[in-house]
Amino acid sequence: MNKLSNTVSNFGEFELIDRIERLLSKDYPPDVLIGMGDDAAVIRHKDGQVQLMTCDMQIEDRHFRLDWIEPYQLGRRAMAVNISDIAAMGGQPTYALVSLGLPEKLPLKFFKNMITGMKDQMAEFNAFIVGGNLAGGSDKLIIDVFMAGKAALGEVITRSGANPGDRLFVSGLVGTGIGGYFTLKQFGNSYPEKYASLVDAYLQPKPRQVFGRLIAQYSFATAMIDISDGLSSDLLHICEQSGVGVELELKRLPLPDGLDNFANLIGSTKWELAVHGGDSYELLFTVKPGVMDTELDLLVSESNTPITEIGRILPLEEGNWIVHPDGKKKALEAKGWDHFVS
Amino acid sequence: MNKLSNTVSNFGEFELIDRIERLLSKDYPPDVLIGMGDDAAVIRHKDGQVQLMTCDMQIEDRHFRLDWIEPYQLGRRAMAVNISDIAAMGGQPTYALVSLGLPEKLPLKFFKNMITGMKDQMAEFNAFIVGGNLAGGSDKLIIDVFMAGKAALGEVITRSGANPGDRLFVSGLVGTGIGGYFTLKQFGNSYPEKYASLVDAYLQPKPRQVFGRLIAQYSFATAMIDISDGLSSDLLHICEQSGVGVELELKRLPLPDGLDNFANLIGSTKWELAVHGGDSYELLFTVKPGVMDTELDLLVSESNTPITEIGRILPLEEGNWIVHPDGKKKALEAKGWDHFVS
Repeated sequence: MNKLSNTVSNFGEFELIDRIERLLSKDYPPDVLIGMGDDAAVIRHKDGQVQLMTCDMQIEDRHFRLDWIEPYQLGRRAMAVNISDIAAMGGQPTYALVSLGLPEKLPLKFFKNMITGMKDQMAEFNAFIVGGNLAGGSDKLIIDVFMAGKAALGEVITRSGANPGDRLFVSGLVGTGIGGYFTLKQFGNSYPEKYASLVDAYLQPKPRQVFGRLIAQYSFATAMIDISDGLSSDLLHICEQSGVGVELELKRLPLPDGLDNFANLIGSTKWELAVHGGDSYELLFTVKPGVMDTELDLLVSESNTPITEIGRILPLEEGNWIVHPDGKKKALEAKGWDHFVS
Repeated sequence: MNKLSNTVSNFGEFELIDRIERLLSKDYPPDVLIGMGDDAAVIRHKDGQVQLMTCDMQIEDRHFRLDWIEPYQLGRRAMAVNISDIAAMGGQPTYALVSLGLPEKLPLKFFKNMITGMKDQMAEFNAFIVGGNLAGGSDKLIIDVFMAGKAALGEVITRSGANPGDRLFVSGLVGTGIGGYFTLKQFGNSYPEKYASLVDAYLQPKPRQVFGRLIAQYSFATAMIDISDGLSSDLLHICEQSGVGVELELKRLPLPDGLDNFANLIGSTKWELAVHGGDSYELLFTVKPGVMDTELDLLVSESNTPITEIGRILPLEEGNWIVHPDGKKKALEAKGWDHFVS
């Protein structure tokens, strides 16, 4: 570690982004409502509309393995993870550009199937790929997606609006992504059928766009983020950017079946896996106190998206806590998946 | 070649883009005025405005060499080549996102200087980096830039508007980029002073944004493109997309000094180098017959950008020709730099 003390590998992705943000943000014009540091940039438009902009680079063997995923799935997934970032702001995806670094021996059929997957995933949200760029001779397949989206200015949900007293919720199940990853790592593609839903969640994430859009329109949420980097990391992003504390109750977490198996393999618990594992594209959000459960029930049924209350927002000075199933409180630490530190 | 007959390496970048375009474009909604296939996508906005969107992925040792370029210059260059694409549509850059694939041992200082270069290049055009994404553990440094821009709908200049009888012009000098490349290849960083301007053009391209914006406002040009892929390739893009032929006169090309040296080294001529060499960020454009030289002179002085008439647009059936200095006509072929076929 000491030898590399002046290299980027000594800093996590989030710390490097912080440094970029400090370098860039002080000169932003007033139309840049949010630059770095949220799920997407927010740029003021006319007539109370904003444009959302985000991007995500995925590199073979770092973010995906070609022996685990079909080209068509890979294309869908690359778009889905970006749509999730737009959804986490309460927005709708509109247009995407795709930059590809292509190894020379990539089969043409792979290429066509991947592009078709990208197109189909976008079409589900009435969104379109309008441009791109190809670079040949890459050692690994590189997929970089730029996604634009739209939202009404008053409906954008950032990471910074949570207040003490807000209730903390998550959509869907927590830990499916990491569960799918461990399934494929242990069994390859011949995994037992009981793990199929974990693998599906990992390879074919379903961005919660309809839910994100609805909760934004209803103005129920004060802060929102997707948990692609892991619940712990992403919850702490909300806490830091909102200037609040939090209490997360592990026993309330909605877990998929089968996590115990993989937790045992690495000497961990299913709770740890679920809290710190990445590659889940559920939405984590805080709800202001006035919103009634009946209103939330309506949102759940209208969006067909289950939600679970998993904690509450505290004043900053009360700190960040994780309540274990045995009742013991420990400090909540960011051990979420950081693509940068391996 | 036969062994790889079903891989992407058998197809040039342009042919693969054609295939993507055919796959994607048929479902575009009316707001997508131009999708794939021009310097930037053009999306309709409100009030007669359009948004321009483009991206460009650059991979270490494929598009740049770290022993040739300083981190600050590299950052500037990555933004400049994208701003050039916006300029080629007659637009102004507005916002960019930057995706970086970072090798673990990249020095933090390199990273900071590169970001500063990016920021400074954007600031020259009153444009801003508002987001990005970092991926660690990459073998090579990967820089992918997404650039948004704006233009008035009626002023956008595409590749498809050239008509027979139009005059063909280019800004600045042709062949500086390839000249700079060969200078560094032959001499490394200790090149003779007389080649400094070639190296500067190669490492520090100056996007012709002011000129592109002005010629768009004056409605002089019928088609425009930047010649980053090489004059021959990019001229043929105009011809194909406009459905016209062309006659290019080699002896009229405005060449920098020093190309002869490198042409001799590879058994070529300075004309060939200039016509087919890439990495130049000048604008190639067609001017409709009614525009007078005095009007063009005004544009030249207002933008402080020299231009040279280098040929004329023909009817499609008359074909694409290159007139050599000895008066001989040959078919114009696309031998421009294609980043995909090495």
